[in-house]
Amino acid sequence: VSSCFRASEEEQQAQSKKALKKQQKEAEKAAKKAEKQAKLVSVPVVFDVFSLRLSLSLSWIEADRALVRVQDLTPEKAEQQIWVRARIHTSRAKGKQCFLVLRHQQFTVQALLAVGDRASKQMVKFAANLTKESIIDVEAVVKKVEQKIESCSQQDVELHVERIFVISQSEARLPLQLEDAVRSCSLSTPKQTGYVTCLLTMRLPSQTTTSQAIFRLQSGVCQLFRDTLINKGFVEIQTPKIISAASEGGANVFTVSYFKTSAYLAQSPQLYKQMCICADFDKVFCVGPVFRAEDSNTHRHLTEFVGLDIEMAFNYHYHEVIDSITDTMVQIFKGLRDRFQTEIQTVNKQYPSEPFKFLEPTLRLEYKEAVAMLRAAGVEMGDEEDLSTPNEKLLGRLVKEKYDTDFFVLDKYPLAVRPFYTMPDPNNAKYSNSYDMFMRGEEILSGAQRVHDAQLLTERAMHHGIDLEKIKAYIDSFRYGAPPHAGGGIGLERVTMLYLGLHNVRQTSMFPRDPKRLTP
Amino acid sequence: VSSCFRASEEEQQAQSKKALKKQQKEAEKAAKKAEKQAKLVSVPVVFDVFSLRLSLSLSWIEADRALVRVQDLTPEKAEQQIWVRARIHTSRAKGKQCFLVLRHQQFTVQALLAVGDRASKQMVKFAANLTKESIIDVEAVVKKVEQKIESCSQQDVELHVERIFVISQSEARLPLQLEDAVRSCSLSTPKQTGYVTCLLTMRLPSQTTTSQAIFRLQSGVCQLFRDTLINKGFVEIQTPKIISAASEGGANVFTVSYFKTSAYLAQSPQLYKQMCICADFDKVFCVGPVFRAEDSNTHRHLTEFVGLDIEMAFNYHYHEVIDSITDTMVQIFKGLRDRFQTEIQTVNKQYPSEPFKFLEPTLRLEYKEAVAMLRAAGVEMGDEEDLSTPNEKLLGRLVKEKYDTDFFVLDKYPLAVRPFYTMPDPNNAKYSNSYDMFMRGEEILSGAQRVHDAQLLTERAMHHGIDLEKIKAYIDSFRYGAPPHAGGGIGLERVTMLYLGLHNVRQTSMFPRDPKRLTP
Repeated sequence: VSSCFRASEEEQQAQSKKALKKQQKEAEKAAKKAEKQAKLVSVPVVFDVFSLRLSLSLSWIEADRALVRVQDLTPEKAEQQIWVRARIHTSRAKGKQCFLVLRHQQFTVQALLAVGDRASKQMVKFAANLTKESIIDVEAVVKKVEQKIESCSQQDVELHVERIFVISQSEARLPLQLEDAVRSCSLSTPKQTGYVTCLLTMRLPSQTTTSQAIFRLQSGVCQLFRDTLINKGFVEIQTPKIISAASEGGANVFTVSYFKTSAYLAQSPQLYKQMCICADFDKVFCVGPVFRAEDSNTHRHLTEFVGLDIEMAFNYHYHEVIDSITDTMVQIFKGLRDRFQTEIQTVNKQYPSEPFKFLEPTLRLEYKEAVAMLRAAGVEMGDEEDLSTPNEKLLGRLVKEKYDTDFFVLDKYPLAVRPFYTMPDPNNAKYSNSYDMFMRGEEILSGAQRVHDAQLLTERAMHHGIDLEKIKAYIDSFRYGAPPHAGGGIGLERVTMLYLGLHNVRQTSMFPRDPKRLTP
Repeated sequence: VSSCFRASEEEQQAQSKKALKKQQKEAEKAAKKAEKQAKLVSVPVVFDVFSLRLSLSLSWIEADRALVRVQDLTPEKAEQQIWVRARIHTSRAKGKQCFLVLRHQQFTVQALLAVGDRASKQMVKFAANLTKESIIDVEAVVKKVEQKIESCSQQDVELHVERIFVISQSEARLPLQLEDAVRSCSLSTPKQTGYVTCLLTMRLPSQTTTSQAIFRLQSGVCQLFRDTLINKGFVEIQTPKIISAASEGGANVFTVSYFKTSAYLAQSPQLYKQMCICADFDKVFCVGPVFRAEDSNTHRHLTEFVGLDIEMAFNYHYHEVIDSITDTMVQIFKGLRDRFQTEIQTVNKQYPSEPFKFLEPTLRLEYKEAVAMLRAAGVEMGDEEDLSTPNEKLLGRLVKEKYDTDFFVLDKYPLAVRPFYTMPDPNNAKYSNSYDMFMRGEEILSGAQRVHDAQLLTERAMHHGIDLEKIKAYIDSFRYGAPPHAGGGIGLERVTMLYLGLHNVRQTSMFPRDPKRLTP
C-alpha cells in the first residue's frame, strides 16, 4: 500500500495468495474502522505526481494502532504485542539474528530479529541494512530478559520484532557517530571539550541522550521560574529588542540597520521593566533574548543568551526583593530535584557531578564578610575592590566549606564598582543596595535597588561622567511618581550549566552564539 | 524623621511637645518591634551625603504596617483603620475639605480630608497641593457610603484620611492628562485613534486603567498557552534571534553588524523548531520576538512582535497537530473568560465589544468551502487565488453568521500560495496540507505540515525558483531521519487585540515597533 511497507512486502511474497487476499480484506476492514473511530485518519491514497516519497508523510491504513513510547517499555508489558516508533541507534547482524538498539529521546531498548516463524531471512537482512538514525515503526512482542541489559535505559525487557516499517530513512553517512558524543566524561577531566565540539559540529545538536536531558531540564527551569512568580502575583511583560538608543552608553551593543536609520539590540530589558514599575505593575518578569557584543571567548559568555528578568516595587526595604528572588531560585532547585531526576541522572552518566546543595532560607552574606573570608584565605584585596573571577570561585569554595551550600547572595557591593543607577547604601556611602547571586562559585544574577528619583539619578550619572543627553529618556521615566523598586537579571544558560555541574555554557544553549559562532 | 513625613510634621507642630515626645517613644518602640519581627526591616538612618532625597527610598520606622490594596477596599473593611499606598488620580479642594481619587493599577477609591479632629487646616491644604500622579501612603478609616461612587472602581466605600506620607512626588506638568487617555470610545468610532496617540505619546504607556487590564490579560494569554502545552507534553525551547543566513531568501530581514561580519534578525524560529523535531523532541514550543523588516503601516503589522510558536511530530495525520493547536486556543479563550473578567470589563468600558465566541471542537473549513461561501456572497475569485484581507474579513462575518463562532481554522490552502516547505496534499495536487486560523475575521496563525524529506524539499524549492545554496543548511537538516511534523506561529499582540475586539495592534504592544516608531 505504501512504499515504506518494505519489510512486510517481502514477507508477503513468501505467503500464499490466499493468505494475502485475506490480509488485504482485514486491512480494508481496519481502515474503515479507523476512519469511523477517529476523524483524524483518512485512507491513504498515494498520489504520485510528487513521487512515492510523499507517502512517507501521510496516513497509514493501520493508523488506529497506538504507539508505545520506549520509556514505557517495562516488565508490566511482558508478552504484549505492541507498536513502537524509534530511531535505530545501533545495529548488529550475527548469523540469522539482528540486534538493534532503538532510541527515542533519552531512552533506549534492545530489539531482536531472528529468522524463524515470525521473520523471514530477507526481513532480517533488510533490518540489518537499515541506516543508523533512521526512524522506524516496529511491531513486536515485549519479552522479559534474565540478565539486565546494561547498555540500554530499558534494562529488563527486549523486543522480539515481527514487522518493520521505515518512517524516515537516514543517509548512510552521519556527520559524526552519535555514540562518540555521549561517552562518559570523568571528573578528572572537567574541562574536556570533546563533547562540546561534537555537539557544535553536528546539525542536530540535541539528538544525544545527554542533550535531550539538558534541554528538558532547561525547559523546566523556565517553567518553574514563571510558575513561582505568577503565584507571587508577578505579571509577565514583553519588552522590545530593537531599541533606538544604547542603554548604558553604547559599549558592547550590536547595531541594526532599521529602514533608513540605525538601531541597537537591547543589552537588557531593564529600562522597560522599570517603566512598567513606574506604571504601577508592582511586580513584573520577562523571559527573552539579551544581546552582548562583547568579544569574550570564555566558557561562560555568549553574545546572545536568555535573560530571566525580575523587577519589583517594594514596600519598605529592598531585601523584600532579594527574598522574592532567592525564594524563586529555591523553588526552581526543588522543582528540578523533585521532577527532573531522570534528566539529572542521564546527564550525570556522561558528566558526573555532586548534587546541587542549597539552604532555606538562602544564605545572605555582606560584601565585607566575603572580603574578610578571602583575606583569611590569603587573598590581598581592597575594601572597595571588585571580585575577580578566580576570587569569586574561591569564595564559592569557602562558602561551601563553611555553610555547605552551592547557592548564596552577596549583598551590599561597593558603590564604586556598580552602575550609576544603583541606589547607594544610606548607612554607608562606600556601599550600595546591590547584590549578586552565585551558584557553585559563579555569578548567575546581578541586581540592585535602582535610584527612582530623577534628581538623584542625574547626580549619580554626572558622578560617573555619563552624557546626560544620552540617558534623558531613562531619567525622565522617574519624573511622574516612581515607587521604590529593585530587581535583577538571571542568565538561563548559566543556571542550567551550574545546576548540572557542567563546564561550558555552550552545552546548555541549543544554538550557541559567540564571537566566532553564528550557525546553525 | 524623614523628609517625606511632611503632612504629619505639620500636624506635629500643632500638637504639644509632650504629645510629640510620647509619639516619638512609641515610634521607637514600634521600630524595635519591627526589627525583631521582620529581619527585613532596618531602622532608617537618614544619611545626608547624597541629600535627603535618599530617605525616600528607604525603610521607615513603621515598616511593620501592612498595606491594603485599593482593590481590597470593600464594605467588609468598614470602620477599620488601614494604610493604603496609591497614586493621586485627581484632587479637588472645596472649602475645608479635599477630595482625592486614589488609584492603584485598575482600581480607584475616593478619599476625603476634612479639617477637624483628625486633620489640621495645614494638612488639608498640603494634600490639596500634592501633584497628580504622586505616590502617597495614607492612613485612613474605611467608611461605607450611602450612595454609590460611580466614578470609582470601589463604589461602596471611601477613605477618611488621617495621615499622608509622600513616597514619590510627581512633577507638576504631566505629558498628558491621564483622564483623557481613558475616555470611552463608542462602537460607532471603531477606528478612533486618539487613545493610541495618547498611549504612544506618554512616557508611561501602561499607566491607564485600560492598559493595565490589557497587559495583565496578555500575560494571561502567555501563561495559558504555555501551561496548556506543557500539560500536553510539549517542551519549551529557546531559539537564536541572530542568524547567519536569511531563512526565506533574504527579503524583509533586518541586518545586524556582527563583529567583523554581518548577520540577520530571525523572521521566524521555524528552522530551529524543525531541527528540534529532527532531534526527537516530538513536541516543542517557544515564545519570543520575531522580526519583520516590512514597510507595512497598517493596524495589524509590527516590525517586532511576540511569536507563540508550536511544532509537533505527529503519528499518522497532520490534523493531529491542528487539533492540538485549536485545543490550546480554546483553553486560552476559556481561561481568559473565566479568570480575566475584571480585565475584560475594564477594557470594555473604554472599548465596547461583543464577547468572543468559540466552538468546541473548533470549526474546521476547507479552503474550497470558503471560496464557495465567498462566491455565494458575490465575490469573484479563482480556486487557487489567495484570500485578500477584505475577503478574509468578509469570510469571518459569513462564518460568524452561519456557525456563530469568532474562531475557526481554514484548512487545505492552494499549494501555489504557500511557501516551498509546505507539504502538498497527496489527494489533490492543487492543494496543500496547510492552514490558517482566524479570530474575528483576521489571521492569527499560519501553519502547515512541513516537507520532511530532503529530496522532495529540494524539488519543491527548485519549483519555487529558490537558490538551493542559500537553503542548504535547512535541507540538510532532514537527511538524518526526520519524523513527519507540522506546526505554526501565532502573533501574541494580534490574539490579545482580537480577543478584546480592539482595532490596533499598537494597543496590545507595550512598546510597539513599526517602520516609524523605535521609542521608547
